[in-house]
Amino acid sequence: MNKKIEYIAKKERIEVTKLIESINKGNTAIFGSKNHKNINPVGIGPNLRTKVNATIGTSEDYCNPKDEVEKLQIAIKAGADTVMDLSTGGNIKQIRKMILDICHIPVGTVAIYRSAADCLKKQKIFEKLPSKSFLDTIEEQCDEGIDFITIHPGITYKNMELFQKTNRITKVVSRGGALTISWMLANKQENPFLENFEEILKICQKYDVVISLGNGLRPGCIHDGFDGPHIAEYVSMGEFVYQARKNNVPIIVEGPGHLRIDKIILDIQMLKSCTYNVPTYYMGPIVTDIAPGYDHITSAIGAAIAAANGVEFLCYITPAEHLSLPTKEDVYLGVIIHKIAAHAGDIAKGIVKAEEWDNLISKARFDFKWEKIEQLSIDPSEVRKHRELRPSKTRACSICGIYCPMDKIRKIKND
Amino acid sequence: MNKKIEYIAKKERIEVTKLIESINKGNTAIFGSKNHKNINPVGIGPNLRTKVNATIGTSEDYCNPKDEVEKLQIAIKAGADTVMDLSTGGNIKQIRKMILDICHIPVGTVAIYRSAADCLKKQKIFEKLPSKSFLDTIEEQCDEGIDFITIHPGITYKNMELFQKTNRITKVVSRGGALTISWMLANKQENPFLENFEEILKICQKYDVVISLGNGLRPGCIHDGFDGPHIAEYVSMGEFVYQARKNNVPIIVEGPGHLRIDKIILDIQMLKSCTYNVPTYYMGPIVTDIAPGYDHITSAIGAAIAAANGVEFLCYITPAEHLSLPTKEDVYLGVIIHKIAAHAGDIAKGIVKAEEWDNLISKARFDFKWEKIEQLSIDPSEVRKHRELRPSKTRACSICGIYCPMDKIRKIKND
Repeated sequence: MNKKIEYIAKKERIEVTKLIESINKGNTAIFGSKNHKNINPVGIGPNLRTKVNATIGTSEDYCNPKDEVEKLQIAIKAGADTVMDLSTGGNIKQIRKMILDICHIPVGTVAIYRSAADCLKKQKIFEKLPSKSFLDTIEEQCDEGIDFITIHPGITYKNMELFQKTNRITKVVSRGGALTISWMLANKQENPFLENFEEILKICQKYDVVISLGNGLRPGCIHDGFDGPHIAEYVSMGEFVYQARKNNVPIIVEGPGHLRIDKIILDIQMLKSCTYNVPTYYMGPIVTDIAPGYDHITSAIGAAIAAANGVEFLCYITPAEHLSLPTKEDVYLGVIIHKIAAHAGDIAKGIVKAEEWDNLISKARFDFKWEKIEQLSIDPSEVRKHRELRPSKTRACSICGIYCPMDKIRKIKND
Repeated sequence: MNKKIEYIAKKERIEVTKLIESINKGNTAIFGSKNHKNINPVGIGPNLRTKVNATIGTSEDYCNPKDEVEKLQIAIKAGADTVMDLSTGGNIKQIRKMILDICHIPVGTVAIYRSAADCLKKQKIFEKLPSKSFLDTIEEQCDEGIDFITIHPGITYKNMELFQKTNRITKVVSRGGALTISWMLANKQENPFLENFEEILKICQKYDVVISLGNGLRPGCIHDGFDGPHIAEYVSMGEFVYQARKNNVPIIVEGPGHLRIDKIILDIQMLKSCTYNVPTYYMGPIVTDIAPGYDHITSAIGAAIAAANGVEFLCYITPAEHLSLPTKEDVYLGVIIHKIAAHAGDIAKGIVKAEEWDNLISKARFDFKWEKIEQLSIDPSEVRKHRELRPSKTRACSICGIYCPMDKIRKIKND
């Protein structure tokens, strides 16, 4: 563990002692499990850069494992800090092995997907799985070398009943959440992740795997945000965080979802307060429902606000969200745009030296050092594309040309 | 004027009396000048939808008036509420006529561009123009039928001197600001817009043209944000707003620029406080400098936060910002994305019935009514594109397919 901490402290330019203190308090989680070979560990915490996760994986409709491996490589190239393999189509175990074999960044999964996909393959009824069977699939995935695993114990029977008494428009939009509810209702039994939580802690401790508490009742549209079940799940999450912290098992908690801009800060404060300031993991939040096809952007708006206000870990959303399994291009765009949101958040929350990058590129801009601007920018190919398409006769850009205000002021100063 | 107010009240679904009250207080400005034929007036104010401006116009490097007319049509189709013609290349007067002849949305200009471009054409030295000459070009443009005009009186001689004593990286990034400073320094004379402000008020009153106080010392990078000169210009703007309000001339004020996320709300409060709560007009703000090629998105993040926190009018930024004169595609993307930001802001600031749109599309999403989703979405072509590229065998989308959580919950409910 010490080597991992030193590696992260150096990379993030913070003191080792400060990092250890934050880990001990549970405010920082280290992703890098025992069985993940060649892993470069990643820290998620309040004094570290905001991290971005890319989700990849097959679906029943599109099951091309090679495509998903390529998406993984594209995501890493674009700067993804972690990846979640959410495959539900094809031979999931095999796909995961392909990914883990070549992936040096942390890999996460949603535990229950494997259970559901296995049932489909073997023509078994998912709802008839015994409660303890979920432990087997968790242990199997941890043993394979994943670094973090999502489970949904926060949907207690009581919270589920509460949800049934609301006027939500999109009801439940978490696949893991809906599967869990389906199992609970069919069996008239308490949440299997809740019932087996102590055993889950032992498994995760054994393999050094971080628990991610899924947000199964998260709002799936603006209308459903910030309602009773959403808040009740946060409160329940707190109990599991308390138990995990007591056993020194690292844990993080998931936020929404879809949320009005004016509710984002409240939501973060509420989640942090309920869950003892462990790291928070937000998907967006998406700030309006009117823009399918542009949900990488509706998400980046929410994600930047979230990061600026203390969220440590962002899950990307691609332009294909709500519409179709993302293509490689969608994955690339999703990562780049959420890296931008994360960085904008880092400047705002005062991450050490985050602004250095901005200042370097701004100096190059004032000096018309176009090659340097290209090199320093988050996506040099985009800079090149615009510059080549419409160059200027002057040293400035072709918007202002001879009227460039920076050049005018420089000339006055030099007169 | 009464017809204009009724038209706007109906369109915005608010009471006429409430609108009149807000106009009388100076909190709302009506764009729709006497000489702009076939204008559909637009209101900018605290209880109205947040509006989006698209800037178009030729540059010295790219002067194709027909292209700019096409950009105008594209911007209107994408939903731009107003347009600013910032042409600096070619025969500006002629280009403006082409635009005004076909444009039913309000048109704005930056007064000083015409003066500078005229000098270039006639091989005159801009700095040798007499102070009063700026009045002639303002009157000429108002007479032609523009609806709002940007001037930069806030760069007082004292503010300019203050700016010279700072360590700004990108110094001045406002073309109008740099031209004004250049003239002031060459003539060792006070700002010509300041000196002639009373006459400017008379001209604008005569033609029903709204004054937009330019932000000439606005920060052009994260480093320069929220410094002395930036704040000093806001304070100075207040004096001009006071004078305009006293004379019942409608006026709005410009914000930045580039700004850290954590400074945006402070900036809005400061500007609103200095300038008597007249409407505010923000460009972005852009929240990080590292992403040239993606500045429509770094801007949309800031713009959404700004709109959510009381900004009434947003100027779009295109992907070509800082790099090149935007293409038609850039204009389209810039408008769509800032319309999304404006709408996300409207939900958050509680604009009447803003959320209705979101709820309708969310209901259609839950019901798998894909045609309705397409029709309701801000850009149906994007929805179509993703759906056609990767359809699902199920009624759901191809991400979840048979695992669609909404469908699973619906089936449980119906059992």
